[in-house]
Amino acid sequence: MSSNAFGKLLTVTTFGESHGPAIGCVVDGCPPGLTLDAEEFRHDLERRATGRSRYTSQRHEADEVEILSGVYEGRTTGTPIALLIRNTNQRSKDYGDIVQTFRPGHADYTYWQKYGIRDPRGGGRSSARETTMRVAAGVIAKKWLAEHHGVRVRGYMGQIGDITPDAFDWDAVEQNPFFWPAADQVPALETYINALRKSGDSVGARVNVVADGVPPGWGEPIYGKLDGELASALMSINAVKGVEIGDGFAAVSQHGSEHRDEMSLDGFASNHAGGILGGISSGQPVTASIVLKPTSSILVPGHSVNLAGEPTEVVTKGRHDPCVGIRATPIAEAMVALVLMDQALRHRAQCGDVGVVEPRITS
Amino acid sequence: MSSNAFGKLLTVTTFGESHGPAIGCVVDGCPPGLTLDAEEFRHDLERRATGRSRYTSQRHEADEVEILSGVYEGRTTGTPIALLIRNTNQRSKDYGDIVQTFRPGHADYTYWQKYGIRDPRGGGRSSARETTMRVAAGVIAKKWLAEHHGVRVRGYMGQIGDITPDAFDWDAVEQNPFFWPAADQVPALETYINALRKSGDSVGARVNVVADGVPPGWGEPIYGKLDGELASALMSINAVKGVEIGDGFAAVSQHGSEHRDEMSLDGFASNHAGGILGGISSGQPVTASIVLKPTSSILVPGHSVNLAGEPTEVVTKGRHDPCVGIRATPIAEAMVALVLMDQALRHRAQCGDVGVVEPRITS
Amino acid sequence: MSSNAFGKLLTVTTFGESHGPAIGCVVDGCPPGLTLDAEEFRHDLERRATGRSRYTSQRHEADEVEILSGVYEGRTTGTPIALLIRNTNQRSKDYGDIVQTFRPGHADYTYWQKYGIRDPRGGGRSSARETTMRVAAGVIAKKWLAEHHGVRVRGYMGQIGDITPDAFDWDAVEQNPFFWPAADQVPALETYINALRKSGDSVGARVNVVADGVPPGWGEPIYGKLDGELASALMSINAVKGVEIGDGFAAVSQHGSEHRDEMSLDGFASNHAGGILGGISSGQPVTASIVLKPTSSILVPGHSVNLAGEPTEVVTKGRHDPCVGIRATPIAEAMVALVLMDQALRHRAQCGDVGVVEPRITS
Amino acid sequence: MSSNAFGKLLTVTTFGESHGPAIGCVVDGCPPGLTLDAEEFRHDLERRATGRSRYTSQRHEADEVEILSGVYEGRTTGTPIALLIRNTNQRSKDYGDIVQTFRPGHADYTYWQKYGIRDPRGGGRSSARETTMRVAAGVIAKKWLAEHHGVRVRGYMGQIGDITPDAFDWDAVEQNPFFWPAADQVPALETYINALRKSGDSVGARVNVVADGVPPGWGEPIYGKLDGELASALMSINAVKGVEIGDGFAAVSQHGSEHRDEMSLDGFASNHAGGILGGISSGQPVTASIVLKPTSSILVPGHSVNLAGEPTEVVTKGRHDPCVGIRATPIAEAMVALVLMDQALRHRAQCGDVGVVEPRITS
Repeated sequence: MSSNAFGKLLTVTTFGESHGPAIGCVVDGCPPGLTLDAEEFRHDLERRATGRSRYTSQRHEADEVEILSGVYEGRTTGTPIALLIRNTNQRSKDYGDIVQTFRPGHADYTYWQKYGIRDPRGGGRSSARETTMRVAAGVIAKKWLAEHHGVRVRGYMGQIGDITPDAFDWDAVEQNPFFWPAADQVPALETYINALRKSGDSVGARVNVVADGVPPGWGEPIYGKLDGELASALMSINAVKGVEIGDGFAAVSQHGSEHRDEMSLDGFASNHAGGILGGISSGQPVTASIVLKPTSSILVPGHSVNLAGEPTEVVTKGRHDPCVGIRATPIAEAMVALVLMDQALRHRAQCGDVGVVEPRITS
Repeated sequence: MSSNAFGKLLTVTTFGESHGPAIGCVVDGCPPGLTLDAEEFRHDLERRATGRSRYTSQRHEADEVEILSGVYEGRTTGTPIALLIRNTNQRSKDYGDIVQTFRPGHADYTYWQKYGIRDPRGGGRSSARETTMRVAAGVIAKKWLAEHHGVRVRGYMGQIGDITPDAFDWDAVEQNPFFWPAADQVPALETYINALRKSGDSVGARVNVVADGVPPGWGEPIYGKLDGELASALMSINAVKGVEIGDGFAAVSQHGSEHRDEMSLDGFASNHAGGILGGISSGQPVTASIVLKPTSSILVPGHSVNLAGEPTEVVTKGRHDPCVGIRATPIAEAMVALVLMDQALRHRAQCGDVGVVEPRITS
Repeated sequence: MSSNAFGKLLTVTTFGESHGPAIGCVVDGCPPGLTLDAEEFRHDLERRATGRSRYTSQRHEADEVEILSGVYEGRTTGTPIALLIRNTNQRSKDYGDIVQTFRPGHADYTYWQKYGIRDPRGGGRSSARETTMRVAAGVIAKKWLAEHHGVRVRGYMGQIGDITPDAFDWDAVEQNPFFWPAADQVPALETYINALRKSGDSVGARVNVVADGVPPGWGEPIYGKLDGELASALMSINAVKGVEIGDGFAAVSQHGSEHRDEMSLDGFASNHAGGILGGISSGQPVTASIVLKPTSSILVPGHSVNLAGEPTEVVTKGRHDPCVGIRATPIAEAMVALVLMDQALRHRAQCGDVGVVEPRITS
Repeated sequence: MSSNAFGKLLTVTTFGESHGPAIGCVVDGCPPGLTLDAEEFRHDLERRATGRSRYTSQRHEADEVEILSGVYEGRTTGTPIALLIRNTNQRSKDYGDIVQTFRPGHADYTYWQKYGIRDPRGGGRSSARETTMRVAAGVIAKKWLAEHHGVRVRGYMGQIGDITPDAFDWDAVEQNPFFWPAADQVPALETYINALRKSGDSVGARVNVVADGVPPGWGEPIYGKLDGELASALMSINAVKGVEIGDGFAAVSQHGSEHRDEMSLDGFASNHAGGILGGISSGQPVTASIVLKPTSSILVPGHSVNLAGEPTEVVTKGRHDPCVGIRATPIAEAMVALVLMDQALRHRAQCGDVGVVEPRITS
């Protein structure tokens, strides 16, 4: 199976380099009959776009999705859905200086070591540009999950640097450029990020994703566990260095009597597990959290070596994201949605006969 | 592909329930010519065994591995290696009371909801008993990695409850029942775990794994990234709730100027990345960390419901692990080794012609 | 994915060598709730067994299947079903002379060239012994298909040497050791096979398989076509050199006006297509045909080379099948059943919402 | 894994409908460093093109391949290679009448039954238009096989209707529009096909493919056999109803003493096996043969039903291939090349250490 594809029954294959002619994806396995229009991709792509606000990189990409296949008269036909976005704003000159240099914290050196050749323009294949297609594919998964199962997948920023939300309101999340759930902290965040930008440095971030409405029974043990699939899907996002389900690493210090979620007929008493037990959804909200490392492309000079094997100093000029984690929010949502839809189809394949099992705990 | 299998080119398929006749696995894709003897599994299986010490569950399993196929005159032949362990110490009566009850924190309820039927004896398929076969398969991967690439994969406990190591010595790790890297803390740990056991409760743990000697270039972008594969392999271990690569969640608070590992001809200046950039190994040690939730089977009563849909109280009698994380150390090592061997074979398939690429940074 | 596994959603992984300790398989993806007992494997295994009659090899294998996992209180649980058969009648001395020699028409030379090592005892992994586990796995698929979809998969001999059936009666097929559909020809076949055996030679055969009751819509275009999957499943049977669907090679000489199966409300006017159009079942019986080459292990001496690279002559002593094709009948049935069940699950995954589509042609 | 993808290590995913905006493919797993230019696709695409001669359908498609990714400065980089061809000559009006009707011998009815929706324009996804991308992907495989292993994959027509070649000359094959290996029969073939066209009917065909230079050892037993993979790859081509390896169905009537290819130090005495033993290449030429059914879209009226469930008569107007098998020659070559390259990579992954094994038979 292709290493540029993921999903077992809903398979998404992406292609394209940051500064090549185009990026795209093939979504295979989507059930027939789903209405789909190219306009529907716009909202999430704008949420992801680097030009979304001045707090992320100022490169503006007019990401126009073209549906090349798999849709007839506005509905999916069951055949592969190919999506294409032309790269229109490449400005290759910006990247001329990195052709000869391995940027610290980037994949330049490792691609070079693996392949003996690399497309250095804008990071080539290793650029976060690829995640655009994940977001596009995720739009399809979100829509199918909502229509067929009432599942809603939403993300928000859980931490930027040392700042954590002091309140939580889903409505606030989409009202500010940080996907921040506490409206009153937004001005302080602006100040913080602006200061970072001026200093030429960057900072890490945490993104949380919550999927509501997931029925019990999704997820395949042992190596197709719902949490296992979420882990690889989320870890595969550029810059992600860790994945948690439910309480995650906080469980190190917890006691069993605290962590295990007790049950009654009215539901679970808590959700430390993040809605997954034994790799299978419990009916509670599925919660996952990721950490994104601070942007490596910063104005602060860094030591490195060049292609000739000589020591050199790297300074990123031009575009610069003080916190790449911010725009990872819709990407993380997309990956969670794609995993859930894949698991929904897998569950239906094996357990399509099972029906509703009693007792079912309210959640 | 089977959900009870993992790995693309080194594929491990496991089977078996905790209290069924046997557990086993099929390891497919191992190159021919590796010497292999059934005795070689003993060491790591004993490290994993619940009877290893009084600090973990006292059930003693005499895990005798039988090699059913794939080895001829002491060497692998390239055909699938089937390994079998008979379940000899099942004591089903211990588990009689859980047949009718969904234990909080366990997969009882979710398996029931998914399949409408479950083998309740000892947790059935969701029991950590399955991980025995991961450890056995990992023995093969560790050996091949060592012989062919000089790679060494080792794990240790990074935290138990709130206790963290105050020193680090690889030699200490194998000298105590906690895989603890600081010998002087062992008596205190014994006291702590004994107190926990007496209280009938349990605690979480962190396990760290380090793979030394991994050459640059292993790992397949985009959805076959080395870190992505590690994440799903490690998250699939029972009770794991989080996975980190390198600095992991600590990166939330880091600045880019701190996190990115600068390079010189003499090597990398640091290893915040955990030896992986863009999903590909950099030549530095690969480091991963996992958290295991506290054992859910404890003596402290917990609320739940039973098969009839009535409220009930669950108390685990008999065997009880105060910290399941301890014996996860060899399991995590095995999973890391299996992922690395798989990636080594994948790299050889696609990049077998590439040869040594210059400049190569010493590490 | 393992090369010793097949099937996407119903995945069968086999292991074992002809003269190793055991052969076995892991069947993953079977829906929960199917009743299953070890006795149910007996019938088809006896149909396949070499000791079935004096017309096939006289080696008698007492193939006792042990269910190692996946079944609880007589019903499948949705977890992997591992089946094991111990090799009890190995008589390794029979094969002593072939250790140093590459038998013409066998895989001896090619395994040696691929792996640089091989288990020569009885052909090792390349022995038709492996097909025992296909038959066992096929029992599960046949049962599920019958219970859930009313599908029946049956095979018969379509040709032995130049002899073809002069009548057709399903009832006759199971009444003679040749799976021959014309009872009156059986004595002549006995004479023919006995003469072949005495001459020390062997002959090829054709096996036909028919699956009745397959509903329209099974099969996944483009590279998961029902006929494509049947082709690889059937070609993977030892000694098979060709696969046909429907009219197969006879279509070379047909005109379009003859071959295309016209339709009316009462059904298709013919079934040249073998029940598959565009890779998807049409609702007509699915028909496939295979050819098996004549046994290479014969008493007639043949030229070859030995391990030392010297010319040598090979004569097979002892057991000798004058027509290996005969016992391929239940193997071919099993492969067809496994492919169909896999496709049924795949169809349910993607098109589980579609329901009955009108107009549906009676068939 | 996607049903619109094939290959384990060299994975080709295709997308697109006959009359959609475009068709395309993603080739993943190609080793880095292969030179590749869009012009290189032209030759084989023209060989396949329907407009190649007046003996096949007169629709002319200007198939201009655009390389969207995976190539940098004229060389492959190891990242996925996406190829795109815009559909420019759709003439949808030609197909207006088939929207309401299920054409006999086509996939119209089965797609409708499977999905409950279909793109009827030109056959949609089930059109042979899709094979354009197989040919394009095959160009990459042919080139890599030639450069790295000296393998050459060539096809020719083995039979049209009842006409078989009376001579064999590779040079002749590319000198006539029928890929016919006997030059003196070409005028008679022209007469034959013209008469067929006038009669409004069509005829079946056999295509043979030969791969020279395949080293011993390629192919993975048991379910990844070289012949098994060839069978599914070739059977997946539109209109194919049978696949043979080596002597194929002729082996029914052969004796073992005739069929098995005896060996000496100077090579094999014959090649009945088609270069494959036990699923692994022997070093002899790999030979495969397929049958393609006669075109179903003919001028002769045929009975069918329409969407409303009423009886109707179907007559194909306009374009009409009297023998679709002719243009299958480059498609079959492409599929064989793709399978061989995939197997070459798989072999290198598992047996990269084995080196040259003695004794090696000259071939």
